[in-house]
Amino acid sequence: MTRLLIKNGAFITMDEEQLQFQGWMAIEGSRIAGLGAGAAPEQEISQASEIMDGKGMLFMPGLVNTHGHAAMSLLRGMADDLALQEWLQNHMWPAEAKFTGDDVYWGSSLAAAEMIKSGTTTFVDMYDHMHRVAEVTEQSGLRASLTRGVIGLCSEEEQKTKLAEAIQFARDWHGAAEGRINVMISPHAPYTCPPDYILKFVEAAHDLDLPMHTHMSETLAEVEQNVRDYGYRPVEHLDRLGMFSRPTLLAHAVHLKDEEIALLAERKVAVSHNPVSNLKLASGVARVPELLQAGVTVSLGTDSAASNNNLDLFQEITMAALLHKGVSGDPTVIPAAEALRMGTVYGARSIGHGGVTGQLKAGLKADFIAISLNKPHFVPYTDYISHLAYTARGSDVAHVWVDGRQLLRHGQLLTLDEERILAEAERCYQRLRG
Amino acid sequence: MTRLLIKNGAFITMDEEQLQFQGWMAIEGSRIAGLGAGAAPEQEISQASEIMDGKGMLFMPGLVNTHGHAAMSLLRGMADDLALQEWLQNHMWPAEAKFTGDDVYWGSSLAAAEMIKSGTTTFVDMYDHMHRVAEVTEQSGLRASLTRGVIGLCSEEEQKTKLAEAIQFARDWHGAAEGRINVMISPHAPYTCPPDYILKFVEAAHDLDLPMHTHMSETLAEVEQNVRDYGYRPVEHLDRLGMFSRPTLLAHAVHLKDEEIALLAERKVAVSHNPVSNLKLASGVARVPELLQAGVTVSLGTDSAASNNNLDLFQEITMAALLHKGVSGDPTVIPAAEALRMGTVYGARSIGHGGVTGQLKAGLKADFIAISLNKPHFVPYTDYISHLAYTARGSDVAHVWVDGRQLLRHGQLLTLDEERILAEAERCYQRLRG
Repeated sequence: MTRLLIKNGAFITMDEEQLQFQGWMAIEGSRIAGLGAGAAPEQEISQASEIMDGKGMLFMPGLVNTHGHAAMSLLRGMADDLALQEWLQNHMWPAEAKFTGDDVYWGSSLAAAEMIKSGTTTFVDMYDHMHRVAEVTEQSGLRASLTRGVIGLCSEEEQKTKLAEAIQFARDWHGAAEGRINVMISPHAPYTCPPDYILKFVEAAHDLDLPMHTHMSETLAEVEQNVRDYGYRPVEHLDRLGMFSRPTLLAHAVHLKDEEIALLAERKVAVSHNPVSNLKLASGVARVPELLQAGVTVSLGTDSAASNNNLDLFQEITMAALLHKGVSGDPTVIPAAEALRMGTVYGARSIGHGGVTGQLKAGLKADFIAISLNKPHFVPYTDYISHLAYTARGSDVAHVWVDGRQLLRHGQLLTLDEERILAEAERCYQRLRG
Repeated sequence: MTRLLIKNGAFITMDEEQLQFQGWMAIEGSRIAGLGAGAAPEQEISQASEIMDGKGMLFMPGLVNTHGHAAMSLLRGMADDLALQEWLQNHMWPAEAKFTGDDVYWGSSLAAAEMIKSGTTTFVDMYDHMHRVAEVTEQSGLRASLTRGVIGLCSEEEQKTKLAEAIQFARDWHGAAEGRINVMISPHAPYTCPPDYILKFVEAAHDLDLPMHTHMSETLAEVEQNVRDYGYRPVEHLDRLGMFSRPTLLAHAVHLKDEEIALLAERKVAVSHNPVSNLKLASGVARVPELLQAGVTVSLGTDSAASNNNLDLFQEITMAALLHKGVSGDPTVIPAAEALRMGTVYGARSIGHGGVTGQLKAGLKADFIAISLNKPHFVPYTDYISHLAYTARGSDVAHVWVDGRQLLRHGQLLTLDEERILAEAERCYQRLRG
């Protein structure tokens, strides 16, 4: 088995026991074998099959993007600055109705290329034609939690077919790609799935022993509709439907009352905060300081490139650190280290991967990235955690490894054909817009 | 005189008469000689002394950063996530008290390197030891509006010395560096300069026929203090002191009442909006949609790297486009094109450079940048204006020209020694922290 030794690097581990140091890290096969401050021990040097000089580089866990729709990268910039319903009904849905498996494959490949180049190593994806997203995950080398997001506003017949698809996808792909692919079960949202239909997803998640993922309380209008239609706000509604008896990740959760935050904490429900998308669509500002204060695991997602318009998780980290200070009036909320945790270790935890990825720690999977420090915006070398949260961008990422395998070297993709992907994505878009 | 012809490029001009096209642009000496859609005319080809193929590149006006303190880049990341007064009194001011001319020179050089690499071609700078910032401007090739920012909380003797310094700096440097340096007159803020001292700056600005620049209404506390101390909110206070009889640029202007917005519009006072700094210091969210609606020229500034923590104006453009949608609940405010105007043509106008820079237009100075489009985050090629506002980052900038002179080529600085600057800035910081 290969054993890579990185020496002379700066490390930010996101492991509170040894958060940062100048030192070394050893990777054996797909896992981190050891790491520590100072010069690499003699034994590490003699055991290594490859030695990398980490001088001038900063190593940290790969980023975890906990909410997105990769294939929608094909619609990046197609429609912006519009009211939500006009954007959805006149632009997104008509274009998405034309999506074939081929579009999903190339759109997701485009997203995978962008994510790897900007330091994301694990992503959550909710869409249709999910076996094509799984293929992209397999080929790209990324780690992913994938889920068929089902909209249930259709006939009972169609509902059955879609649920069966979601279950079949889980049976076919959960644990695939050497364990890099996990599957979640997803009714799209409380406002797009009737309660009895959501119950069937909860049942399926129990049968398959899988976690659940759904959109919730992204806009005030959908919360009000939930109260009108079902008598409860979305948190209580989903709790009554038994969803929180499964490990659950909620995307957005912008509009929450105090008692809803308390219930999410009690049920150990995780939240994927998508600050850029929430701002762009004017959905509002999620109550992240209060969620964190209550003990809820809050991670970060880009949402799709159609409402972002990029997949650079460093932008979400920076936005999370900035936005809540300005809106709350308290400059001490979400300090730099907490924003970084949201993009790494909290992301891993929110998809049940706390013991797998999101930290640099012996025994965990070797999912990590290297950033070149030799740039004006990283000088002076005052505080790497501050620099990562406030000044780093995806373009600073030079190298990426997932499962011990290198996916990016000096900014070049090793597992994907970037030139072909850009051309095929453009071709797909030209057909979709037509 | 050299005549550069760029052909086959994508152009975003920020000139509403021909906002975007695929075509050519000619630069003669320091100015844009002509530009247009389609193939370059035969005459342009025969006149050119150099021809550049712009295929795969997007050309746009250089960005205008209308508020900052370049030398404070030395304090980037030194103290974050603190309450404002603790940050200022226990961290910034003690460090700044140690600043020598040498620190200002290397700190400003570090800022100049970062600004050029991220596409800024004109910057406003308010600090001390301004002749050293002027030297950096001269050497780097950047365009700048420079101003000695004077804090007047001192003896009358010191006040006199500082005012004399500000006047002397204007006499020595206004119009220098082939006209690339302009000077402004700056009492630091209404809360740091007594009214009778501000009056002297207004008088000096009239004598020298120069515009004024000051901080105003950044925090709610300073607005309340102004009312307590002088009986008026800052806008009326400065208006009564005659400041707005000069062309004036106000930094921040976060806390404004409707009648203050109306008065700023009436007096044609420009505002430099610094969204990232305002969020990070928890100052609040400026009423930018209302200011624009009232007809106020609103441009963008990074403020210093100590409260940002970078000088990437693309981040401010993106933040301006996102933040006000989320906070107002209206996804149509500050559309992509308006955010780009704030970072270019409105920036130029707000420092009296409307006829000089900020657009690609025949007769204007050749201050422009080229962005490589061949990247996943710019695909598909739906809408360049959207891509520039929502997905471009400073790191996408490949080439930069100011006054017709190339300052950056394929990401490499041509006028500054980057390696030396990073080393000297680090050395300065090590001394300052000691």
